[in-house]
Amino acid sequence: MSKQHTKHEITAGDEITTGPLPASQKVYTVPQDDAGLRVPFREILTSDLQEPSVRVYDASGPYTDSKQITDLNKGLPRHRISWLKERSIEQYTGRDLLPEDNGQAQGAYLADAFPIKHTPYRRTGEQPFTQYEMARAGLISKEMIYVAERENLGRQKVLHTAKQSLDQGECYGATLPNFVTPEFIRSEIAKGRAIIPANINHPELEPMIIGRNFLVKINANIGNSAVSSSIEEEIEKMVWATRWGADTVMDLSTGKNIHHTREWIIRNSPVPIGTVPMYQALEKVNGVAENLTWDVFKDTLIEQCEQGVDYFTIHAGVRLAYIHLTVDRVTGIVSRGGSIMAKWCLHHHQESFIYENFEEICDIMRQYDVSFSLGDGFRPGSIADANDRAQFAELETLGELTQVAWAKGCQVIVEGPGHVPMHKIKENMDKQLEVCKEAPFYTLGPLTTDIAPGYDHITSGIGAAMIGWYGTSMLCYVTPKEHLGLPNRDDVKTGVITYKIAAHAADLAKGHPASQIRDNALSKARFDFRWEDQFNLSLDPDTARSFHDETLPKEAHKVA
Amino acid sequence: MSKQHTKHEITAGDEITTGPLPASQKVYTVPQDDAGLRVPFREILTSDLQEPSVRVYDASGPYTDSKQITDLNKGLPRHRISWLKERSIEQYTGRDLLPEDNGQAQGAYLADAFPIKHTPYRRTGEQPFTQYEMARAGLISKEMIYVAERENLGRQKVLHTAKQSLDQGECYGATLPNFVTPEFIRSEIAKGRAIIPANINHPELEPMIIGRNFLVKINANIGNSAVSSSIEEEIEKMVWATRWGADTVMDLSTGKNIHHTREWIIRNSPVPIGTVPMYQALEKVNGVAENLTWDVFKDTLIEQCEQGVDYFTIHAGVRLAYIHLTVDRVTGIVSRGGSIMAKWCLHHHQESFIYENFEEICDIMRQYDVSFSLGDGFRPGSIADANDRAQFAELETLGELTQVAWAKGCQVIVEGPGHVPMHKIKENMDKQLEVCKEAPFYTLGPLTTDIAPGYDHITSGIGAAMIGWYGTSMLCYVTPKEHLGLPNRDDVKTGVITYKIAAHAADLAKGHPASQIRDNALSKARFDFRWEDQFNLSLDPDTARSFHDETLPKEAHKVA
Repeated sequence: MSKQHTKHEITAGDEITTGPLPASQKVYTVPQDDAGLRVPFREILTSDLQEPSVRVYDASGPYTDSKQITDLNKGLPRHRISWLKERSIEQYTGRDLLPEDNGQAQGAYLADAFPIKHTPYRRTGEQPFTQYEMARAGLISKEMIYVAERENLGRQKVLHTAKQSLDQGECYGATLPNFVTPEFIRSEIAKGRAIIPANINHPELEPMIIGRNFLVKINANIGNSAVSSSIEEEIEKMVWATRWGADTVMDLSTGKNIHHTREWIIRNSPVPIGTVPMYQALEKVNGVAENLTWDVFKDTLIEQCEQGVDYFTIHAGVRLAYIHLTVDRVTGIVSRGGSIMAKWCLHHHQESFIYENFEEICDIMRQYDVSFSLGDGFRPGSIADANDRAQFAELETLGELTQVAWAKGCQVIVEGPGHVPMHKIKENMDKQLEVCKEAPFYTLGPLTTDIAPGYDHITSGIGAAMIGWYGTSMLCYVTPKEHLGLPNRDDVKTGVITYKIAAHAADLAKGHPASQIRDNALSKARFDFRWEDQFNLSLDPDTARSFHDETLPKEAHKVA
Repeated sequence: MSKQHTKHEITAGDEITTGPLPASQKVYTVPQDDAGLRVPFREILTSDLQEPSVRVYDASGPYTDSKQITDLNKGLPRHRISWLKERSIEQYTGRDLLPEDNGQAQGAYLADAFPIKHTPYRRTGEQPFTQYEMARAGLISKEMIYVAERENLGRQKVLHTAKQSLDQGECYGATLPNFVTPEFIRSEIAKGRAIIPANINHPELEPMIIGRNFLVKINANIGNSAVSSSIEEEIEKMVWATRWGADTVMDLSTGKNIHHTREWIIRNSPVPIGTVPMYQALEKVNGVAENLTWDVFKDTLIEQCEQGVDYFTIHAGVRLAYIHLTVDRVTGIVSRGGSIMAKWCLHHHQESFIYENFEEICDIMRQYDVSFSLGDGFRPGSIADANDRAQFAELETLGELTQVAWAKGCQVIVEGPGHVPMHKIKENMDKQLEVCKEAPFYTLGPLTTDIAPGYDHITSGIGAAMIGWYGTSMLCYVTPKEHLGLPNRDDVKTGVITYKIAAHAADLAKGHPASQIRDNALSKARFDFRWEDQFNLSLDPDTARSFHDETLPKEAHKVA
């Protein structure tokens, strides 16, 4: 945080948005298979006693629970510590904090550290430890029980129509179940078709699952930069993004204070946090890509594993031999991680140290159950470059590395493009499923045209809905500021809502048994002129209500 | 206009937005086949002399031509009067203006009439007269030559890659040509696969074509209502909508002053104007649907034909026998025209007078070459009701009526839904092509989920892009205020830009030979850090520029 505040000034309710959404209350259910777990949902109440309330998936954590008090200085409750007993772990003295972890920030430029220093955990021994290893060994973890309960939503109520819904949907070879059991979760993770990103050092997390037989998830990117924003603002962006439905958050901070910013975010985050470790590694060598080394990178991975980052974007597919494939592109290499590695490879004329040390990276990440998000450093930055040889060459390498990571016991998702016209989207999905053996796909958009900067949440929302339908498991949001600047709070919300639309449209099209409950309830409210119910059942009740008021301000109109 | 203004206060540049878009100039080209025609385009200039300017389709008329002065009191130049010589027409004393045409508005409540009273034209004799009849007779009209030139854009420059582009695209059975000739236009119109909506009494019009082998078009709805907005505001909405790319505008005004409002709009509109005549007919019977008669409806059609409306939404498929199919729906009948007719049919227990008198309607419309837009009164208003028996029963009737209208020599497009989940969109397109024998499809959205009021430009933009790709010829925009209130100027712009994105994404996916020129130019500018060019080449330079400035305000950053 900036120096003009003391750490005691950071308290929830001040800079942070808390409290339930309109007409909503947090409810918790207890899974049949583990009476010790409490799984959160949001219950939207209706004004008509004849109409049932609607239970929706809720990624927002304790911040929207009116019965819980959050204190940013303490972080969220570390419930999941007790779950770790089922695994063979040890606590150990972690790596020391180094000046370069915060970009050598000093004095007034150094942000306050998070007030509590937790001692990190790591695996010990070779018993099944990661979710993938446990699943392969036939073990059902608490996290698996938790996410099974979480995924079902109102599916219990609609069991009698589940088959019909699935039959009417089109899910392109996915195998959505009528009902999600912990055993189904286990089998999907064992097949590599789903992951539960949950670092053992992020016990504040409410576990969630990413896989194409589950609800389509969305990620929101946040992150401070050299030019703007304080730690408080970043925490608020995380809370704000999850309030509107972000299932995971990536902290893409650059510049100084990266370590401290991340610590504050993780300690207060109910959702998995992803990072691109390369960004911090680059700061450690003062932004000079050529000066990167395997040691600096490895040190950064361990630092972030110990902090509790749940998944790492690792650009291991940017191989020396592929770089020349990008020279005739309209937009070259646009991925930041990709261009850093390409610069390093070309300067040293050497194979990527990430690719070369991939097995050791696996060995580090499996100590904490950090999941891979294999980055697409050659993702196309324009319609002209979509589905080209550079992109697909890299994808094939990501497929090869997926299997290496699995063999090491790690969980894996794979990142995808980018800018892709509609008719080339499905080829991406099909090829990814094939070469990555059904490891979950995690795509940025894709943007379906290049001509609308300022509206790229929409150009990409179109592509996201489609690729989500075709089988992508998680959609990385794009905000209206894409290509133009850093998103502010409003942009984050617009991005999240747009991507909730895309993800939900995909769930509907796949025939997800419970996904239409909310549409039906809202449409019925609309047809009955129950305006307040229509607003409250919507993804953004505040905007719906304000738009209605703008032209028909009187309450009398609302019941007309 | 409201009474506090005199008509002399209505002058362009005051309430009306004029002038070119940033870095743009209006250019006119002369078609090879008719040296008397001047076809407008917008030329976007680049800052780099090495980079060519980019020519884009331009629906905005003289308002964006810095060399032309527009005067709303005079209306736009009536260039197309001289074109009428090629057809057998007569001028005649039109229908008298009646008090009910303006909803019995009197005194201070009666808006000023448009200052000039033009004598209407109509066909005389049975020589080929409508674009459809001329095309069938092998005649190439000036309108056909004009739109051929207009559709080509920069296609001349990319002829060498046209085939490759089309081969790579996927256009689901459409047959886009490498290059558009007047003869190709004629043959498409003769097959009923395209229309040029151009009432002979709207000579201010710059002709355009709607068909799936051409650029996907978009429509913007405007219209005053009893509660708000003046005539000036409605003219400005029309000018504003076309400035951002609306290819046609529907005037959906209700309440008083409908006749005068429409007259001002048509006289000043460079794009085709559509209406739903039923809305005015209902005003003439004081809003009581049961009191509608064929005579009132017919009188309204003639009134609007004489004014110059280019296409009519006619809900002729809402047949008595189908109404019961809607009783089990979640959202019943949501189309306003549909519900008016259903109410009438049920009250009188009689077949729709529109369906019964359909041939006479054709006889009226063919006198002026007004095009049919066969309305879908049973369009689904929710995901739950998509593709149901009511919807498809009506579509089959629309298919039957398409052929009746063609036999009468009329041009026809067919309206489509509505709310449709992604996996049910293609069925709509395929069925429409089949039962309506490839008559152009004109869809509202479709909205791919019901849960995001306030963001229905996005829920529907997803569906619009997809159905445009599958073959829809024109997309009717949806604004953020859909379901909630009347769109203001900002909403109109947001709706138009969103639909330009959808239409353009569809053109790209179909492999339109010239559509990628703009994407490539913008992407190249982006990669070269030519910020100003990136903004100017975008659909909304103002927004792109302002978003960039928000976080990186210095000019220095723009060239970095």
